[in-house]
Amino acid sequence: MGLVVQKFGGSSVGDVQKIKNVARRILDEYKKGNSMVVIVSAMGKTTDDLIKLAKEINPNPPAREMDALMATGEKVSAAMMAMAIAAEGIGAVSLTGQQAGVFTETVHNKARILEIDPERIEKELARSRVVIVAGFQGINEYGDITTIGRGGSDTSAVAIAAALKADYCEIFTDVDGVYTADPFEVKGARKLSEISYEEMLELASLGAGVLHPRAVEVAQFHNVVIHVRSSFNNNQGTFVKEANKMERKKAVTGVAHDKDVAKITIYAMPDKPGTAGKLFSKLGEAKINVDVIVQSSHQQQNTNDITFTVPRGDLDQALKITEALSKEVGAGGVNSDAKVSKVSIVGVGMISTPGVAAKMFATLGSAGVNIDLISTSEIKVSCVVAEKDVDKAVQAVHDAFELEKE
Amino acid sequence: MGLVVQKFGGSSVGDVQKIKNVARRILDEYKKGNSMVVIVSAMGKTTDDLIKLAKEINPNPPAREMDALMATGEKVSAAMMAMAIAAEGIGAVSLTGQQAGVFTETVHNKARILEIDPERIEKELARSRVVIVAGFQGINEYGDITTIGRGGSDTSAVAIAAALKADYCEIFTDVDGVYTADPFEVKGARKLSEISYEEMLELASLGAGVLHPRAVEVAQFHNVVIHVRSSFNNNQGTFVKEANKMERKKAVTGVAHDKDVAKITIYAMPDKPGTAGKLFSKLGEAKINVDVIVQSSHQQQNTNDITFTVPRGDLDQALKITEALSKEVGAGGVNSDAKVSKVSIVGVGMISTPGVAAKMFATLGSAGVNIDLISTSEIKVSCVVAEKDVDKAVQAVHDAFELEKE
Repeated sequence: MGLVVQKFGGSSVGDVQKIKNVARRILDEYKKGNSMVVIVSAMGKTTDDLIKLAKEINPNPPAREMDALMATGEKVSAAMMAMAIAAEGIGAVSLTGQQAGVFTETVHNKARILEIDPERIEKELARSRVVIVAGFQGINEYGDITTIGRGGSDTSAVAIAAALKADYCEIFTDVDGVYTADPFEVKGARKLSEISYEEMLELASLGAGVLHPRAVEVAQFHNVVIHVRSSFNNNQGTFVKEANKMERKKAVTGVAHDKDVAKITIYAMPDKPGTAGKLFSKLGEAKINVDVIVQSSHQQQNTNDITFTVPRGDLDQALKITEALSKEVGAGGVNSDAKVSKVSIVGVGMISTPGVAAKMFATLGSAGVNIDLISTSEIKVSCVVAEKDVDKAVQAVHDAFELEKE
Repeated sequence: MGLVVQKFGGSSVGDVQKIKNVARRILDEYKKGNSMVVIVSAMGKTTDDLIKLAKEINPNPPAREMDALMATGEKVSAAMMAMAIAAEGIGAVSLTGQQAGVFTETVHNKARILEIDPERIEKELARSRVVIVAGFQGINEYGDITTIGRGGSDTSAVAIAAALKADYCEIFTDVDGVYTADPFEVKGARKLSEISYEEMLELASLGAGVLHPRAVEVAQFHNVVIHVRSSFNNNQGTFVKEANKMERKKAVTGVAHDKDVAKITIYAMPDKPGTAGKLFSKLGEAKINVDVIVQSSHQQQNTNDITFTVPRGDLDQALKITEALSKEVGAGGVNSDAKVSKVSIVGVGMISTPGVAAKMFATLGSAGVNIDLISTSEIKVSCVVAEKDVDKAVQAVHDAFELEKE
């Protein structure tokens, strides 16, 4: 008996039958004697439909109005879920982000949660009601409705779990948990029973897509244990928790890969202070998300080559900006490759295990995979390789670190 | 230059193109220098769709959750309208019922508005913004979302106009204004340039359908001038205002008719105190809306006949209840007629004009229309007649009182 926070995403509440199934699942936990707080996303494609409708009215809708519009999607699914639970004879109440006491920054479309005032939720729990909260939304200092960005319902759930001091926060999704690698692409990919916040954060940023990075950050800050599991079965999923609570035997926890990568090189750039800064400022102003950056110097010519990666959809615009700067500063020129990919290994264990990066490089070499760029952090090593090599590279690395074994 | 409150119903904001048209119409007034507050209903059939979805989840959804669900429809259209106005380069802000300061009774589904706190609306008007308010909704003392019943957006508009001391409140609808009779059925039916609150209230209750009776009540209480007009053209419509401000030449202002009427008679009912009360209590418990009631006594037999009318959809259930009571109290029996209709004349002028009812009865007699039942109030005379006679009856009365003339 405890206090459980659950979060169900849009695909789990996509139609009437799915909502009824989720309601019964919630009640299984409730009937064990648990207090239940459930965060829901908008039904299926509702958010996308609302965005489409808005763009027909106004190609550049005011951010405040977009938030007011989009937040209705979660309000609908919260009310529907409360009705579904009431249909099973249990008291339930739906709360908007505002009613649930979710206060955010003033900014619209991607406000961060500042504070949760759980008074109303606690009052409803004291009346033994199942509390359903509309995810993805809050209210700012002006009393205006804000949304907290894509994947925001994960963050709502974790923040509410933290405020309520919940025993844990269950995030239901369409996969079974967090795997050592993409189970659809890598032989021997294994579900992890647990993973540290730091590792989950790296994997989320690398595109593993199970949990939103911001949700992991909030969980880590408040030390909320997250249980990532499937909404389609009762299997145990993956617990995301503090690293030092875990016994650790392996240097590497998982392998991630990202195929949405393009590469740009500006070469023979005069080595003058501020030139690189100018380039990345301009890319930032254009909202282009630059990932790996490597610089190499030619000291005799007093020039640098800079190579960086961007999402493929941003390549054209990034090329234009880079070519303009190349002319401006008198660099040797620019070239690009739209077909590269990134392979990364992640593990808190690598902090205390020398030679992990070297083993990855050697593994890729033996597999005949040429490494274009390398980027490392304390718990991550990423290599950019040709797209044609990425599947082979991931499998080789997964095998070399024996991730298929417990 | 003044403060104008406008209200657009669901059919006026039914799709993207209609919303854009309404936005331009609002801006025409705004550009004359007026401060604009606009109340909108949900787009087209949104409310019906939400009700259908809810019933699939739970045939008896909790009233609180129905309100939370249904109120989203108006929030969507308010945000969309604000976006449409912003697309024309004018600042606009959408407000939920709560943000607009609409406080209601605690009850759900048909809460009455208790108070409007116009602070936020006034703040936005001071910034020269067009304010769009989601109609049909408010918030109760628990911070829960309430709705104020079908037609509630009319009432929202009038209550907000009262709180803001607006110059007038324009209700846009799919007809040109209020007519002396149904212009699609009666030759010579004429649009009224003005009508009193009392008359409008009677006409609305009689099914004229242009304005919700509750909205008229609120307007009368706060002395808000309503302008009922078409959303499809710029013609002047009908002003609804205080009677004593009008010069009055005619006893009768309009003729209304209602075909959705069935009649039940329970005859030879023993004349014991409380018997009639018992019948109408039982009909009330079954939520059957009884309209005209006529009782005639047979003093020698010490029995009564009671005849009353109900909407046709309630006839079967009302018959069952009446027949059960007939047996219980030992009455002579029950009969019914599903095919009757009601013709009514309305006019504040009849208070000071003797013989108006008599003239109506004589007119119907000359037209060969037999009168079944009569019911009168200070400013109304209603006659129940056979359905086959109703069109003839309405035209004859309209002609007799010369309503086609100014």
